[in-house]
Amino acid sequence: MSDQCLFCGIVTGTIPSVNVAEDDTTYAFMDINPASDGHLLVVPKQHSQDLLEIPAEDLTAVTLAAQRIARTAVKEFGAAGVNLLNCCGAYAWQTVFHFHLHVIPRYVDKTKDRLVRPWQPGTSDDKDAITALGDRLSAALD
Amino acid sequence: MSDQCLFCGIVTGTIPSVNVAEDDTTYAFMDINPASDGHLLVVPKQHSQDLLEIPAEDLTAVTLAAQRIARTAVKEFGAAGVNLLNCCGAYAWQTVFHFHLHVIPRYVDKTKDRLVRPWQPGTSDDKDAITALGDRLSAALD
Ligand SMILES: [Zn+2]
Ligand SMILES: [Zn+2]
Repeated sequence: MSDQCLFCGIVTGTIPSVNVAEDDTTYAFMDINPASDGHLLVVPKQHSQDLLEIPAEDLTAVTLAAQRIARTAVKEFGAAGVNLLNCCGAYAWQTVFHFHLHVIPRYVDKTKDRLVRPWQPGTSDDKDAITALGDRLSAALD
Repeated sequence: MSDQCLFCGIVTGTIPSVNVAEDDTTYAFMDINPASDGHLLVVPKQHSQDLLEIPAEDLTAVTLAAQRIARTAVKEFGAAGVNLLNCCGAYAWQTVFHFHLHVIPRYVDKTKDRLVRPWQPGTSDDKDAITALGDRLSAALD
């Protein structure tokens, strides 16, 4: 836990939030700048900076909590789908450095859904370059 | 397992892929239309359509495999960060209906990184509307 951390403050209650769910290891609350109606965040109660740092048991608990809430959100809000997103590092759009998983309900009605596709699947991708990167990664994992 | 499913075909090897890692329950392979250099997918070997359907044990295994690969990718490729993304439903950009988690290394060098921010955090969000949605979701979970 970090004294300077916004989400540690939310977990302990010194900073207000709209709580959605909570268990021994996770806390879920509404995003105050939602990308869609019902956009929320799930965090581990124990401080971890990001995906690289979070212990397996916290990552598992956060993911399963997100799945449970996503199922209910889709039903309750009549969503057409849902995205889970984790941003690890400032260059991956992380702005609060306490691990969080975005749960973003998606809608046919664009007044409820303000997202744009983060990339367009390409048509002229370089197969050899992709294979080389995959082989490099695979070798580094061994 | 579905006969018509592209990713079931990749898991069993009837459809070629650039494999990155594999264990008893998960299979990781390079995305053929990468959003960034090193963009890969992790799938459960057992067919599940999406986040709403995937069993907890498969979701856990996929997530932990993604974390392990993300750590190596950041180191090996000198990435500045990484995104994890799951798309559940066509309206959430899902195109293959076998659960998959995108692992997307992110770079300072924009020639390696073709993503755009899917939303801009707002400045005039309606606090009362957010609270009402959060309360509704919380009540539906109980
Ligand atoms: Zn924290
Ligand atoms: Zn399948």
